[in-house]
Amino acid sequence: MASKAFAIVAGVGPGTGAAVARKFGAAYPVVLLARNPDNYESTVKEINNSGGKAIGISTDVSSASSIKDAMRKIEQEFGKGGCAAAIFNASGRFVRKPLLDMTEEEFTAGYDVSCKGAFLFSQAVLPLLLQTVSAEGQHPPTLIFTGATASIKGSAQMQSFASGKFAMRALAQSIAREFAPQGIHVAHAIIDGVIDIPRTKDWLKGMPPEAKISAEGIADTYWHLHTQPKTTFTNEIDIRPMLEKW
Amino acid sequence: MASKAFAIVAGVGPGTGAAVARKFGAAYPVVLLARNPDNYESTVKEINNSGGKAIGISTDVSSASSIKDAMRKIEQEFGKGGCAAAIFNASGRFVRKPLLDMTEEEFTAGYDVSCKGAFLFSQAVLPLLLQTVSAEGQHPPTLIFTGATASIKGSAQMQSFASGKFAMRALAQSIAREFAPQGIHVAHAIIDGVIDIPRTKDWLKGMPPEAKISAEGIADTYWHLHTQPKTTFTNEIDIRPMLEKW
Amino acid sequence: MASKAFAIVAGVGPGTGAAVARKFGAAYPVVLLARNPDNYESTVKEINNSGGKAIGISTDVSSASSIKDAMRKIEQEFGKGGCAAAIFNASGRFVRKPLLDMTEEEFTAGYDVSCKGAFLFSQAVLPLLLQTVSAEGQHPPTLIFTGATASIKGSAQMQSFASGKFAMRALAQSIAREFAPQGIHVAHAIIDGVIDIPRTKDWLKGMPPEAKISAEGIADTYWHLHTQPKTTFTNEIDIRPMLEKW
Amino acid sequence: MASKAFAIVAGVGPGTGAAVARKFGAAYPVVLLARNPDNYESTVKEINNSGGKAIGISTDVSSASSIKDAMRKIEQEFGKGGCAAAIFNASGRFVRKPLLDMTEEEFTAGYDVSCKGAFLFSQAVLPLLLQTVSAEGQHPPTLIFTGATASIKGSAQMQSFASGKFAMRALAQSIAREFAPQGIHVAHAIIDGVIDIPRTKDWLKGMPPEAKISAEGIADTYWHLHTQPKTTFTNEIDIRPMLEKW
Repeated sequence: MASKAFAIVAGVGPGTGAAVARKFGAAYPVVLLARNPDNYESTVKEINNSGGKAIGISTDVSSASSIKDAMRKIEQEFGKGGCAAAIFNASGRFVRKPLLDMTEEEFTAGYDVSCKGAFLFSQAVLPLLLQTVSAEGQHPPTLIFTGATASIKGSAQMQSFASGKFAMRALAQSIAREFAPQGIHVAHAIIDGVIDIPRTKDWLKGMPPEAKISAEGIADTYWHLHTQPKTTFTNEIDIRPMLEKW
Repeated sequence: MASKAFAIVAGVGPGTGAAVARKFGAAYPVVLLARNPDNYESTVKEINNSGGKAIGISTDVSSASSIKDAMRKIEQEFGKGGCAAAIFNASGRFVRKPLLDMTEEEFTAGYDVSCKGAFLFSQAVLPLLLQTVSAEGQHPPTLIFTGATASIKGSAQMQSFASGKFAMRALAQSIAREFAPQGIHVAHAIIDGVIDIPRTKDWLKGMPPEAKISAEGIADTYWHLHTQPKTTFTNEIDIRPMLEKW
Repeated sequence: MASKAFAIVAGVGPGTGAAVARKFGAAYPVVLLARNPDNYESTVKEINNSGGKAIGISTDVSSASSIKDAMRKIEQEFGKGGCAAAIFNASGRFVRKPLLDMTEEEFTAGYDVSCKGAFLFSQAVLPLLLQTVSAEGQHPPTLIFTGATASIKGSAQMQSFASGKFAMRALAQSIAREFAPQGIHVAHAIIDGVIDIPRTKDWLKGMPPEAKISAEGIADTYWHLHTQPKTTFTNEIDIRPMLEKW
Repeated sequence: MASKAFAIVAGVGPGTGAAVARKFGAAYPVVLLARNPDNYESTVKEINNSGGKAIGISTDVSSASSIKDAMRKIEQEFGKGGCAAAIFNASGRFVRKPLLDMTEEEFTAGYDVSCKGAFLFSQAVLPLLLQTVSAEGQHPPTLIFTGATASIKGSAQMQSFASGKFAMRALAQSIAREFAPQGIHVAHAIIDGVIDIPRTKDWLKGMPPEAKISAEGIADTYWHLHTQPKTTFTNEIDIRPMLEKW
């Protein structure tokens, strides 16, 4: 695959985002976006050290101007090569709270990142994805959204997180239906379970490793979605560890 | 049913909101909320003239302070009688536009009313609904959200409206699951089709009347939901005219 | 409502079926079908004693010839008056068993009643329902299917019951889409929880009454569905007690 | 991957089944089941000629004894090596007919293959899949069911096909939930669109190739599902061509 096209991963922390960046970074130059550079710096370094090319840009995806700044830096770095894949992996703060105790700010925080951020990111990357639609030997340009159990179920006290994730799923469907005829592959992944990252080390104590989701496993599946040809698009997929109840 | 408890309908226009207000106004004093008094004044007058009691309050449901003002006026009017039923029928502006042509403001408008508004409204009315939980001879206090086809399907160019409606559905589920054990009945209605109101008079031209939904039919079904006992709660229902494709 | 049209309830036991028969029996002559006459005799007597008209017919809904016999008796009794409402409430035997321990007969039993029975019943009653489509002053003729949690979720060891109920839901949707344009109202109800009947008296011990569904509550909701006008059809509804987890 | 474990594909015609057999046949000895040997013979030959190992067995998956015969032949051929992957790709006859014109036999034909067949096949292969659960270096043993649009939507006149496919989806979920904790990966694929095979050559005339699904694309995705580790199981996935409306 001859390619100057790059991949962008928004919402890089030590889990899914980093794994996805490493996976796509093996095939493409890759841009890592996170608010806090601490979240992407080691992964950027790791990719660059292992022969890939990665840059990190501190970005608040819920801010149009911050996204615009990021896109300007991307253009400086990569010119007009176009985008092969964009993964939106950012999530609003996870607040679990009785409805009557939740502030307006806590409630809308879920939407601001998960959905408004996804909208701003999509608007920024879709023109770049469209550039690579007919690129010879390329996989169809791909836009993937990371959802959660809360994308399809609104549990008690989860109104902030779930409303943001439901909204993002609606956005993903709308974009899929508008842009599929133009050759863009849009997929929404329902990640159902606890991802195995440093922060969740002590969760599900006493359970075997198969109780948590592997971030690398998610990244492998995202990569597979990216490789699907125009005749065979997956628009929604669920992913859970073998011991998850559902 | 002896009762000082009142009903509140948010989002009153010439269609569903007015019909619901009339229906619930036959049993309860009823409060009509809409931004523009033009939207509720004739219905308020009609209910008062036909022996019921209704007041209208100009309210922007997407504004916490506007909702607070409304609740203060309601308390002045009805004291601490508690709320028997609250219906959230407001919708964000309906913008259908290619994703790349949509402004951030147009996109978030869907959420601001449909979901943030629903959240603010729910926070305001739930304490009043909880007051009537054990009221003798009362139907279980009921909170109903008016959804749409776009609550479960994100069509092309519908990203604003659909993301707001998906988000509202998540909110409705979260509230249902938190408050059902406390005796509150929360229902989400998927209104799938064109409602027969003055504004849609020229839509579906040449089709018989059964191609549109009757606002009175919706109101009758909302009233039935309200009368369901604690043993028999419906949390989601769809409603469409007999000629609707689905 | 002037009417010789009658209602038919298939699958009458001491719970939902009996309650539905009583409810519809207050407005229409009503036919009760069950394999075992013990299951309908007391309800038939009760309806007849309270001024209504009811007959019971021993019927195996999974048998085409048994259904045909029942329809012949119905015609003898009611002539060609047509059918106002038909409720399919029969369920396959509830077998919960590890997949590898289940016999073919146990597996298909779920489908035979829940779905093949529903098909045979629908074929028998639809011509009678079509007769009353334009009857003056009548509610739209209504065909209601009683589903369950297992209509939308296949739990472990529930393969027999769930596959039958999923299949019935497909059938209900297909019939709804074919016959709605002809004026027939088809509804599928997801009954999610334990119904409060003699057989379940000892289930959920220690829980308050709101942990179980009231059969009368279901019947009231089915009646409401029947009264919906052609402009306002509900095709799917869920029903659960306030203490049910979902 | 050192392995004597084999793969089984039930329902091999010139489309998905053959493509899946070729794909899995590149890694495993593969057994092809179809009623009519014409349907598998050329694929069996092709796999054997290209260095793989394949056998075909004429089997009626809706018949317990026919399945049993097939399993006996498989054991003769492969001993007790166990099964690495089993794909159920058989479908009932596709009959689209008004409900009132459909015979009982036509109606149940959908279920007999799509669901009863899937049940019988699952009972036969699960013990063989369980044998390979802890095989060193193996992917988790995988059982995949091929569904369709009709697995989640019952369209008009589609009652036979849809009820069989809904039922199969219930079965797949029940098996997934029972056997995932034992290490078996069960996936259900919703194939939404026309598959590009000789029989559909003249369908969607005038449309570009991206209007049909590639059988090879499906096979690649099934293979990816098979490679997912125990931490990252996909239980449901949809697949459609880029020009499909959904």
